[in-house]
Amino acid sequence: MIRAGIVGATGYGGRELLRLLTAHSGVELTALASTSVSGETLDEALPAFRKLHTLDFESFDAEALAKKCDVVFVGVPSKASMEPVAALRAAGVRVIDIGADFRLKDTAAYAQYYKTDHTAAHLLPESVYGLVPWYREALRGAMLVAVPGCYPISILTPVRALLDVDGAGGTPAVPGANREIGGPRAGETPAVQAPLVPGLPIVVDSISGISGAGKGTSEAFHFPEMNENLKAYKIGNHQHIPEIEQELGFRAVVQFTPHVAPITRGILTTITLRPEHAFDPAPYFARYESEPFVRVLGEGVLPEVKHVRGSNFCDFGWVMDKRTGNLVIVSAIDNLMGGTAGMALQCMNLMFGLDETMGLRYGGMAP
Amino acid sequence: MIRAGIVGATGYGGRELLRLLTAHSGVELTALASTSVSGETLDEALPAFRKLHTLDFESFDAEALAKKCDVVFVGVPSKASMEPVAALRAAGVRVIDIGADFRLKDTAAYAQYYKTDHTAAHLLPESVYGLVPWYREALRGAMLVAVPGCYPISILTPVRALLDVDGAGGTPAVPGANREIGGPRAGETPAVQAPLVPGLPIVVDSISGISGAGKGTSEAFHFPEMNENLKAYKIGNHQHIPEIEQELGFRAVVQFTPHVAPITRGILTTITLRPEHAFDPAPYFARYESEPFVRVLGEGVLPEVKHVRGSNFCDFGWVMDKRTGNLVIVSAIDNLMGGTAGMALQCMNLMFGLDETMGLRYGGMAP
Amino acid sequence: MIRAGIVGATGYGGRELLRLLTAHSGVELTALASTSVSGETLDEALPAFRKLHTLDFESFDAEALAKKCDVVFVGVPSKASMEPVAALRAAGVRVIDIGADFRLKDTAAYAQYYKTDHTAAHLLPESVYGLVPWYREALRGAMLVAVPGCYPISILTPVRALLDVDGAGGTPAVPGANREIGGPRAGETPAVQAPLVPGLPIVVDSISGISGAGKGTSEAFHFPEMNENLKAYKIGNHQHIPEIEQELGFRAVVQFTPHVAPITRGILTTITLRPEHAFDPAPYFARYESEPFVRVLGEGVLPEVKHVRGSNFCDFGWVMDKRTGNLVIVSAIDNLMGGTAGMALQCMNLMFGLDETMGLRYGGMAP
Amino acid sequence: MIRAGIVGATGYGGRELLRLLTAHSGVELTALASTSVSGETLDEALPAFRKLHTLDFESFDAEALAKKCDVVFVGVPSKASMEPVAALRAAGVRVIDIGADFRLKDTAAYAQYYKTDHTAAHLLPESVYGLVPWYREALRGAMLVAVPGCYPISILTPVRALLDVDGAGGTPAVPGANREIGGPRAGETPAVQAPLVPGLPIVVDSISGISGAGKGTSEAFHFPEMNENLKAYKIGNHQHIPEIEQELGFRAVVQFTPHVAPITRGILTTITLRPEHAFDPAPYFARYESEPFVRVLGEGVLPEVKHVRGSNFCDFGWVMDKRTGNLVIVSAIDNLMGGTAGMALQCMNLMFGLDETMGLRYGGMAP
Repeated sequence: MIRAGIVGATGYGGRELLRLLTAHSGVELTALASTSVSGETLDEALPAFRKLHTLDFESFDAEALAKKCDVVFVGVPSKASMEPVAALRAAGVRVIDIGADFRLKDTAAYAQYYKTDHTAAHLLPESVYGLVPWYREALRGAMLVAVPGCYPISILTPVRALLDVDGAGGTPAVPGANREIGGPRAGETPAVQAPLVPGLPIVVDSISGISGAGKGTSEAFHFPEMNENLKAYKIGNHQHIPEIEQELGFRAVVQFTPHVAPITRGILTTITLRPEHAFDPAPYFARYESEPFVRVLGEGVLPEVKHVRGSNFCDFGWVMDKRTGNLVIVSAIDNLMGGTAGMALQCMNLMFGLDETMGLRYGGMAP
Repeated sequence: MIRAGIVGATGYGGRELLRLLTAHSGVELTALASTSVSGETLDEALPAFRKLHTLDFESFDAEALAKKCDVVFVGVPSKASMEPVAALRAAGVRVIDIGADFRLKDTAAYAQYYKTDHTAAHLLPESVYGLVPWYREALRGAMLVAVPGCYPISILTPVRALLDVDGAGGTPAVPGANREIGGPRAGETPAVQAPLVPGLPIVVDSISGISGAGKGTSEAFHFPEMNENLKAYKIGNHQHIPEIEQELGFRAVVQFTPHVAPITRGILTTITLRPEHAFDPAPYFARYESEPFVRVLGEGVLPEVKHVRGSNFCDFGWVMDKRTGNLVIVSAIDNLMGGTAGMALQCMNLMFGLDETMGLRYGGMAP
Repeated sequence: MIRAGIVGATGYGGRELLRLLTAHSGVELTALASTSVSGETLDEALPAFRKLHTLDFESFDAEALAKKCDVVFVGVPSKASMEPVAALRAAGVRVIDIGADFRLKDTAAYAQYYKTDHTAAHLLPESVYGLVPWYREALRGAMLVAVPGCYPISILTPVRALLDVDGAGGTPAVPGANREIGGPRAGETPAVQAPLVPGLPIVVDSISGISGAGKGTSEAFHFPEMNENLKAYKIGNHQHIPEIEQELGFRAVVQFTPHVAPITRGILTTITLRPEHAFDPAPYFARYESEPFVRVLGEGVLPEVKHVRGSNFCDFGWVMDKRTGNLVIVSAIDNLMGGTAGMALQCMNLMFGLDETMGLRYGGMAP
Repeated sequence: MIRAGIVGATGYGGRELLRLLTAHSGVELTALASTSVSGETLDEALPAFRKLHTLDFESFDAEALAKKCDVVFVGVPSKASMEPVAALRAAGVRVIDIGADFRLKDTAAYAQYYKTDHTAAHLLPESVYGLVPWYREALRGAMLVAVPGCYPISILTPVRALLDVDGAGGTPAVPGANREIGGPRAGETPAVQAPLVPGLPIVVDSISGISGAGKGTSEAFHFPEMNENLKAYKIGNHQHIPEIEQELGFRAVVQFTPHVAPITRGILTTITLRPEHAFDPAPYFARYESEPFVRVLGEGVLPEVKHVRGSNFCDFGWVMDKRTGNLVIVSAIDNLMGGTAGMALQCMNLMFGLDETMGLRYGGMAP
């Protein structure tokens, strides 16, 4: 049994980790640390888990956690995970961070989008980007995993295959670790790319459920303000943009417009690309046939959030529009599971040599 | 591995069974029968389960199913399960029916509330009412289980303990089977009852999510008609009334008013009782301490649907109102899981000697 | 043109007043006062009203408002309206308070339920309870109106007619003002009451949309926490209980259990009463035939929130359950309109001799 | 008083017309015709309007309607309005059609997208496209108005001003009627266009509430299937595409991807355009300053559906993204009001010389 701990178990990502780990037959949950609920019992803070655990919250203590745990999941807000992750790594325990702090390799980009300096940059080289289909080998030996953002997962899954395909049907383009991502290196054979018009941004309009904004209250997400509402936000300056472009090898610029809709879980992403001529994208996606949690629906078959809710799947389909000459791809994930906690568990399964799908074989919860 | 089949896997109860069985490590799914989707593949009919199963739908054939399965779950509309259940039982296979047809022992009541004669009354004596905390022993050997209705589960869990408590903290009042329910028999030591004013109906107002009405479309549940709407329906003549009163041993009349609210899953039930004097109901609920899926929250602690969604729990708490002299109990379940498919799996686990909680250790999906 | 001002226009009741007054052809809006948005323009604070008004927010100044306005609506939180209402009345302007502070005649009850002393008790005698069908005459000359609470409107409309009916089909039982309410006076001919069993509380289970909780943010009503959720709260101690019982003339005790459901607007109330024998309640409701905004649906016809959303109507129907002997009544209102701002405008129309229905002739917004 | 009738009052557009006309002080409703509810009373078919009207449904009879009405609104499904509109026009009454049948000038495009031949093509020359800000003068004398589709209103309002601006701040580019639209005619001075890269489709991703799909039931929009769901549909082949391109004067190709979200009312549209260089779009939108129901929010100020719900407004704002070089515009309307019935009433007000804003001065219903 793998001994796992969670730091930040009351956040939305943390609760989902707790939910999935509770039902995972290869894991024993040995520690729950939280800053916001110290002193409260698990029953009081998370009534949904009554009668399932006898654990109580403890204050964060990296040394203590390292003794009790083989792996620690960290689910704290952006900017707040640098410090605990550094302490945990210093104490020697493997860490899976579901936050944003160890995804960007470029600390200048981090400073620009997160408005603070990175205080644990020494860990960035060992941090493996946890996009399983592309970093599987690197993840097996990883000591620190940065789970991708939810929007990026919904975007990278289809688009990276178009831009960066290696023809080998599974071997990641950059086998060692993701630190090498960042555009073709000198002397590298260029990857086979889909025939996209160069120089045009890829247009990405995503719609997210409100759990993506976290559990912090705000007038914007007060129920009567958000119910029956739709809006766009952070056009062109969302903090996931540098992450997406990094993981596209800087081979494309992304025009990213996130939207929110009054649902709790789920992301639907619509991606419009401009090819030089009509082409069949199916071969670029063939690499996903063996992926357990990527479902390529095909031409004209479109995903729905309900089919992935409560699951670890990323579903996508597309339309090659002959009238306009554009390729439109639509993808769907559950932002908390396939977009966060499920992907984190898949990373953990790989890190510890378990069956990769263990604790994750859920169909979509529809209805 | 228990070999399980599902008849009616595209209905809402059936889909939830499929979701739970897919993740259940003691079960191999060996057959899916459906009348509505014959010819369609599972991928087409239930896209939420793509990449998880290679099974396809087959037409209903009791003999064939009995060969492939150790147990068959039947999830078809009310009145439609009498025939397939009878055929399956005749073929010798154990059956768990999540529908209504084998719950009522009184065929006259069945005819009155379901507007049709019962065509398989010979099976009623062997049918065990699948309310696990009260029929656990009978369920172990059961060949036919009638899973309780969703509303009844939310009502019986608290109220039966008040009316029918046996003092032994776990042994069901009627150990053999539920056919003996129907009021105290001659010579029976009267059960210890809470001090309720006799002759007054128990007032039960339940609020249900719309999945409880099934997948059949109607103008009433067309999205724009039901979204942002609330209503009551079938006041005093809902078909769950005779089931509730049967399982209260006919010791109380129930004034049952069901309501619908625009959520997909969940039931919240508010029960108002008139005691002869203020009393502490906690001792009547002590029997649930060892129940894995009943959570007694206590005086002044009220349940919420979000804490049980996606779980097998029934949560309840209460207020003994000194000003009015009434006892008000509030309970919550997920109608599709704790109220249907989860309870069905718990029955199956018991029937086959598995750990009762296997495949069911889920905390509430909040958010 | 009546010159009207609003104090607290950014609260939910205040916004609805602004919406209705904007479309009311007999009113000129002359002042908007707010404490929370001083300095902000109306466009910034309430973008929904851009291009409709050139007014800006001003700080609260009773003398200034009294000069500009014939009537001032006050929509501030409970306990916060005593001071501004007293100042406005001292300045001589007529006031319609949509809050709770001037509804209870008994200051001890106020102190008990609102946890503070009443600082403007001298105004209680002149305060008219704005339940139009019952206080119409008193409202015509009123200088201070206390608009009823939303739950009370949904409860009193059907129940008061059963308890307190005067047989005159429209004349209020207590013509002068509501201060005389409080049980039959010495020498008064007893009102004709429905044959209810004496001594039993009336069981009232109401379900409210979240706008009823106001615009203040809280974890409880953060979108992902309340969406897809149902819960009960404040069982037996909600602050509307003394208001309801006062307006029932203290002829009944009310067992009131409020619930919340994930909708923005609307209240559905289910009332269970115990008659001594079956009876036809229709004659008790005949007085509402001439009421413009009360719709008596009849036996077996149940209201829905969607049919009253965005309207000033209170709809109700009932079932006399012969099996149980109970009478179950279900009523529906839009808490912000028929339950607050619409009722307030109807009072204003009466106070100023306008057609009572002016600015209020809206059918339900369905869908 | 203008005497108005509605054909198809039980459809969603028709219900909204009924709601708005009921509160419109310049209109007397003189006839309601329906095919689906003949025999039923208005109270039964539309309980939301009880106590507001004494009218009952009549069968469709063009001659009878023409006698009773100065104008008839037709709100029937696509393809079903050709026949009644032709009959009504033959009987001499003015008609406002909220359906799709008289919007396209090109009958071949109609046949291609609506899969049927146009049977009333003789009326197309007199049909005025009811996009008020652009056809105001033509509407004053119109005998037949085709109210634009809801998606097109949300798209054309911002984009037409960029492509087709005439510099005169209000005079429509094509003053006579919209039959002249169809690209610059020989000898016409080209309009001043925004500096967009020629040859690239404009990318439009719209999100609609479910009322846009009408009241017909389907599994797709059964509450439990659509609640908590998001999906795209009809990519590249939605029937509004030829309407949008016609009204852009065929100066742009539109890549239109409609989505649905679980709200009842509202459309949010995100439009991504590729300029040749960064520019300030504000001057192109200056023409809307005097428009009563277009609110230009400005750079960086984004609209929300809640601010236009229950109103006749189209709100839009934009971001000129310097990093990518794209212009992203976001617009919002209430599909049933500003996108259908409100726009229809504004047309009627113009046709009959009333104040254009009469019966339409509603702020957004938020919450």
